[in-house]
Amino acid sequence: MAIITLTTDFGTDDSYVAEMKGVILSINPEVTIVDICHTINPQNIAQAAYILSTTNHRFPRGTIHIVVVDPGVGTERQAVLLINEHGYFLGPDNGVLSYVVEEAGEGIEAFAITNPSFWLSPLSDTFHGRDIFAPVAAHLSLGAPPHELGDLIPSLTTFVLPRPQIGEDRMLIGKVIHIDHFGNLITDIRRSDLPKGRLFIEVCGHIIDNLSTSYEEGEEFMAIIGSSEQLEVSVQKGSAARYLGARIGDEVKVGVTRTSPKGGFR
Amino acid sequence: MAIITLTTDFGTDDSYVAEMKGVILSINPEVTIVDICHTINPQNIAQAAYILSTTNHRFPRGTIHIVVVDPGVGTERQAVLLINEHGYFLGPDNGVLSYVVEEAGEGIEAFAITNPSFWLSPLSDTFHGRDIFAPVAAHLSLGAPPHELGDLIPSLTTFVLPRPQIGEDRMLIGKVIHIDHFGNLITDIRRSDLPKGRLFIEVCGHIIDNLSTSYEEGEEFMAIIGSSEQLEVSVQKGSAARYLGARIGDEVKVGVTRTSPKGGFR
Amino acid sequence: MAIITLTTDFGTDDSYVAEMKGVILSINPEVTIVDICHTINPQNIAQAAYILSTTNHRFPRGTIHIVVVDPGVGTERQAVLLINEHGYFLGPDNGVLSYVVEEAGEGIEAFAITNPSFWLSPLSDTFHGRDIFAPVAAHLSLGAPPHELGDLIPSLTTFVLPRPQIGEDRMLIGKVIHIDHFGNLITDIRRSDLPKGRLFIEVCGHIIDNLSTSYEEGEEFMAIIGSSEQLEVSVQKGSAARYLGARIGDEVKVGVTRTSPKGGFR
Repeated sequence: MAIITLTTDFGTDDSYVAEMKGVILSINPEVTIVDICHTINPQNIAQAAYILSTTNHRFPRGTIHIVVVDPGVGTERQAVLLINEHGYFLGPDNGVLSYVVEEAGEGIEAFAITNPSFWLSPLSDTFHGRDIFAPVAAHLSLGAPPHELGDLIPSLTTFVLPRPQIGEDRMLIGKVIHIDHFGNLITDIRRSDLPKGRLFIEVCGHIIDNLSTSYEEGEEFMAIIGSSEQLEVSVQKGSAARYLGARIGDEVKVGVTRTSPKGGFR
Repeated sequence: MAIITLTTDFGTDDSYVAEMKGVILSINPEVTIVDICHTINPQNIAQAAYILSTTNHRFPRGTIHIVVVDPGVGTERQAVLLINEHGYFLGPDNGVLSYVVEEAGEGIEAFAITNPSFWLSPLSDTFHGRDIFAPVAAHLSLGAPPHELGDLIPSLTTFVLPRPQIGEDRMLIGKVIHIDHFGNLITDIRRSDLPKGRLFIEVCGHIIDNLSTSYEEGEEFMAIIGSSEQLEVSVQKGSAARYLGARIGDEVKVGVTRTSPKGGFR
Repeated sequence: MAIITLTTDFGTDDSYVAEMKGVILSINPEVTIVDICHTINPQNIAQAAYILSTTNHRFPRGTIHIVVVDPGVGTERQAVLLINEHGYFLGPDNGVLSYVVEEAGEGIEAFAITNPSFWLSPLSDTFHGRDIFAPVAAHLSLGAPPHELGDLIPSLTTFVLPRPQIGEDRMLIGKVIHIDHFGNLITDIRRSDLPKGRLFIEVCGHIIDNLSTSYEEGEEFMAIIGSSEQLEVSVQKGSAARYLGARIGDEVKVGVTRTSPKGGFR
């Protein structure tokens, strides 16, 4: 039972997503299609790349992931297939697969999608999600060999992934990279980046004293390791983003609380 | 063919819902997953309980319903499975199954979900929808015996369900419990609660004279028995909620029109 | 493997869509259900008709399409089934199938849906999507013969489809008929309507010089043949609707640029 997932900036008010599904089901009526997200901000490649990265390894190996955030549709930008141990990834070569490329390390294989015999015909100028990516995914789900799609390519376009830095004061300096539906601020600081010891976290002028281990435990603002193993800043039953006025790109600093000679904290 | 439904407050802009689907399909690729609603207001347990109650008996017997509105995730609140003649219900024990418990009457069976061998590992602190409820549902769909999930428990947490009262003036006093996408005001007054006779309905200072039997029949505001057998207040091709300034919790009163000696109505 | 699609104005915050899916799966658990759109503006029959028209021929032949934008539910308006070479179409006879009727030309067959043995019982006054269209679609997907649903009917209610006119100045005068999620203005001018030659396009007081063939190629506002073979007006990485203050119904004019005696353009 093959699975195809869809991540786009198409929204859900138009027929675009359904047109892709119709094309896929016309080629492989047995495939399972799963929506990951269709509300990526229009043309926001970094957001699509992030959402895909937090989701793809939850799916069975061999799942085919289509990502269509494609401001360059109809221009010279390439359509590509990347294969790694988790699955197949189809999208424009514009950075939307940056996290997948990084995670895969050396273990990737990539193809340019240039063979029109797997595409819809006629090909539109504006909707390669429907005319190229959907039919190619459907044919892959039926066992089409990747090398028939086009030539192997040595590398893909990627953007520099956000990662925390060490500041002058030896604090870890990360950034807010995603704000979720609840208003939680998700940062580029991973659990493995955190220093040892009792931590404090600085964000938007607020100090949070120590990490929490559940949303209810904390008082006011809290810092917690979220479900994708990244540091996030939350507020109990409210939106941390709204209360803090936080935005994507805002700095989040982490330091180690020093025990005072008298046994108290800094 | 097993079915798993999802009701959450996760929204559809993040990867959370898709992560749950990926986990489910990794365990049982053949299962059919149906979204009930992902736009429950964050942490609104009563709303989730209501939406589930209007939907679950439309699904085939044996359907597995997951409800994740879970402000206490990571705390001591229990994860539970309730079984009744309609299906299997998985959620936190925080009241989200209140209507299901009431409908089931004596015929329920409930288990604490405590056996980690059915969960994802490692378990996150913040996303038991993905790490506990999704894999448990998938294992149930494959035939895992409920008693292996954990101990039978004698009762579940429920909140007092809204029900109409009889007022001093012998009128039936109910409440708006849901406002739907069209702006219809759905009340806790069921068809079987209504007195006999020609009725009038009072809401937000307006009097509606009699019940309608279709949305187009009525003029201006109308009262009608809606699709879940509850009294609702509507306006033709518009939002009753907006026109009346109505909110959840507002009173809706129903009385019987008295025929005057001359045969006219009050 | 049968497919049923859903197009409604129900939104996704209530249980209505899921109730329909539950009813369908109770009758045919093997069917594949695909959402086309649930955010048609309430009671907007023209919008639903348009969205369906851009999508349905992407699905496999024999797909069953349900459209429920039904302000007259519970009144005398008929429920109908239309069959053409692409599929089966179920909806109220209120114009929602206008484009499908036009596309089908002479090749349609239509039935009134009057046989309650295919419906849910009891029948609600307000939700025939769940009580009539969903179960009828499910029975069709299992092979129920269309003529058992009710009598053949000779014609369906349709509205006059928007089509461009030739103006006094011999320019083609069309209208904006849809504004998509990206703010692209989609018009009723089809590729085949366009005159030969180098074109210019007038919209909301702006002149666009020539057609583009990709979204990135153009500067500022551009005109392009979109994915449903209709002229659309776009702006690079922004919303043409917002920048132009455009609305559905606004005029879009197309003329042919005259080459001046010196070889330049007008």
